[in-house]
Amino acid sequence: MNSQKIADQLKAVRSCHPLVHHITNTVTINDCANITLCVGGAPVMAAAPEEAAEMAGIASVLVLNIGTLSCDQVESMLIAGRAANARGIPVILDPVGAGATRMRTEASERLLAELDIAVLKGNAGEIGVLAGIGGEVRGVDSGGCVGDPASVVLACARKYGTVVVMTGPEDFISDGERTLVVKNGTPMLGRLSGTGCMTASVVGSFAAAGTCLVESCAAACAAFAYAGERAAAQARGPYSFRTALFDEMANLTEEDLGAHADVKVVDIDTT
Amino acid sequence: MNSQKIADQLKAVRSCHPLVHHITNTVTINDCANITLCVGGAPVMAAAPEEAAEMAGIASVLVLNIGTLSCDQVESMLIAGRAANARGIPVILDPVGAGATRMRTEASERLLAELDIAVLKGNAGEIGVLAGIGGEVRGVDSGGCVGDPASVVLACARKYGTVVVMTGPEDFISDGERTLVVKNGTPMLGRLSGTGCMTASVVGSFAAAGTCLVESCAAACAAFAYAGERAAAQARGPYSFRTALFDEMANLTEEDLGAHADVKVVDIDTT
Amino acid sequence: MNSQKIADQLKAVRSCHPLVHHITNTVTINDCANITLCVGGAPVMAAAPEEAAEMAGIASVLVLNIGTLSCDQVESMLIAGRAANARGIPVILDPVGAGATRMRTEASERLLAELDIAVLKGNAGEIGVLAGIGGEVRGVDSGGCVGDPASVVLACARKYGTVVVMTGPEDFISDGERTLVVKNGTPMLGRLSGTGCMTASVVGSFAAAGTCLVESCAAACAAFAYAGERAAAQARGPYSFRTALFDEMANLTEEDLGAHADVKVVDIDTT
Repeated sequence: MNSQKIADQLKAVRSCHPLVHHITNTVTINDCANITLCVGGAPVMAAAPEEAAEMAGIASVLVLNIGTLSCDQVESMLIAGRAANARGIPVILDPVGAGATRMRTEASERLLAELDIAVLKGNAGEIGVLAGIGGEVRGVDSGGCVGDPASVVLACARKYGTVVVMTGPEDFISDGERTLVVKNGTPMLGRLSGTGCMTASVVGSFAAAGTCLVESCAAACAAFAYAGERAAAQARGPYSFRTALFDEMANLTEEDLGAHADVKVVDIDTT
Repeated sequence: MNSQKIADQLKAVRSCHPLVHHITNTVTINDCANITLCVGGAPVMAAAPEEAAEMAGIASVLVLNIGTLSCDQVESMLIAGRAANARGIPVILDPVGAGATRMRTEASERLLAELDIAVLKGNAGEIGVLAGIGGEVRGVDSGGCVGDPASVVLACARKYGTVVVMTGPEDFISDGERTLVVKNGTPMLGRLSGTGCMTASVVGSFAAAGTCLVESCAAACAAFAYAGERAAAQARGPYSFRTALFDEMANLTEEDLGAHADVKVVDIDTT
Repeated sequence: MNSQKIADQLKAVRSCHPLVHHITNTVTINDCANITLCVGGAPVMAAAPEEAAEMAGIASVLVLNIGTLSCDQVESMLIAGRAANARGIPVILDPVGAGATRMRTEASERLLAELDIAVLKGNAGEIGVLAGIGGEVRGVDSGGCVGDPASVVLACARKYGTVVVMTGPEDFISDGERTLVVKNGTPMLGRLSGTGCMTASVVGSFAAAGTCLVESCAAACAAFAYAGERAAAQARGPYSFRTALFDEMANLTEEDLGAHADVKVVDIDTT
């Protein structure tokens, strides 16, 4: 992807200021709210079944995250998801811990089956499990990718007919046709809780503002990971990194992102 | 309000160390706990219906915030609120997102109808909606004030027979007779999630310690907003601002607050 | 305890990277996740009754914290606790606010009665109440220790047949035979919400990795409190302290901990 296109995606987020409706976990809900603000969106968290559809009805995008799921919460996700689908706004799913417990795997599969999910974003273990290729998930941590990551993400995208974002040292994004890799990032992102969840909020913000979903997702991953690079350069440990990460996300200029985003097309031989 | 009176209010909070019982949202619950500690109160969060009344029974003030409400949570708020009313301790209501969904508007109205709310604190959109004057609420963000803010807050205070605090670039406070404006603040407060919720915790701490509710609310708003000013002067972005905001709230001296609080009476022609 | 033994405990945590399953409160859940990461563990939060046993089934340790308990959550704690007991992994209980409301006292007693709790960690008020010796708890704050702290913790350990950790300006740890005191610490730890909860996460991580429970608990308390000492030296207030606390926990070397941990055996005349 060329620099200008990536820079333009960030510009679009800030100009459309999307309302990002989250139904998410209680661990990183504050991080998700604040990273959404920092990137240029407006976060709102509303999970009650009585208001989930109405809130989705005014939102620009819906982000679903099963990090601390309950049966009731999954029902609210379905209610909100149907409302989002009816309006044609994108629905992002973060299947936190799919593969670690049956409940998480089944909830992810049910949400993928009953809703039109625009973007499925997970770590290598979660995506591997949902792709049916296999993968290890220990709690909410990935055990690493089974096989070539670009092929896994492509296969998963084709299986579900959705854009798939697989985060890790490098992020892989595929819509089942085109597969992109984002090489920005820093190991510090793995030493802080919630960076995967925050990626989903950033992806949601870009998805709401953009026109091409696979490119929006790649630009979102690049923006977050590059803000991470800048933050890591100033950090003394995981929490000074955290402070700098949010500051850098908020201060990131389109020019700087355009100049440093490292997004490439992956050639996959699928013959 | 004169400087000494404002300084004395902060002194009172620190000397009475009020127990601030919150039933609040999961997004900013940690922020509310920590800002309460920083200002000199003791936070406790207890929402189970089985203990809500008992906890309110030992608290100095009750803060209700519907940011991530559920039907069960509203019931707990009513239980705790009745216990607080029976004991005569102040109840603060933060109607987060009233106007955005029917559930939030109705829950706010029900809490105002069934409880004796001492202070209703919201943004311009929420207060406008509850005042019946009109206002726009997008998710949990205010669409701005419809009409003159001092008149809106006065009308809302008269409608509900409560003190109303309307936060924004300037904060307006009215008890239906006297209307005050707090001109302290910084745009950075709008770039961080939870600053409205934190204001309610600070207002609650001051309300518990003070003798005149409208003055306590104004002093609380001035203290928080002035801590924000000091924090903004050191910040590189929203998260270094956050760190500095809590530090400054904790380190704020009575003298410094007295010298810099900008609280004025608003003359409103209500003839 | 000699320096080498304490240093070795930290080394063990980092080498076994324990999966720390939390069922905990919504106030400090993010703090618990991040401090677990910083000390070298892998946090996972899973409270749904449908997955609590399965998650405990792959965990290295289970940490139960009743800070924002509900009846449903206590049931999930029992389900997860039974699974943990069946596998022989340690269960840590943090009885937040026991003594403040009947619900919290009874939930703590029920968990202690129905589960094999390896470590009971609380403040002086909570431990005093559960020991049956008396203690004051105001919200979630301790009113101080009734009687000699070493004797209280020893009596509580004998009453429940568990290791007891009583935190405060000095931390006391007893298995009913040996009683240790950790003299590391800083008053700043009392000015930040969640430091008690974080201690339980660190204790859990050490308990999972160690071989002698009472020594693991003492090493955990020393590690956290010494990280606090280092953080306090850099802090301008409670939130810059917080940032430094997590950074210091993550950067703490075994050598440094061994050199500065202040853990002593307490001689108690129990004749």
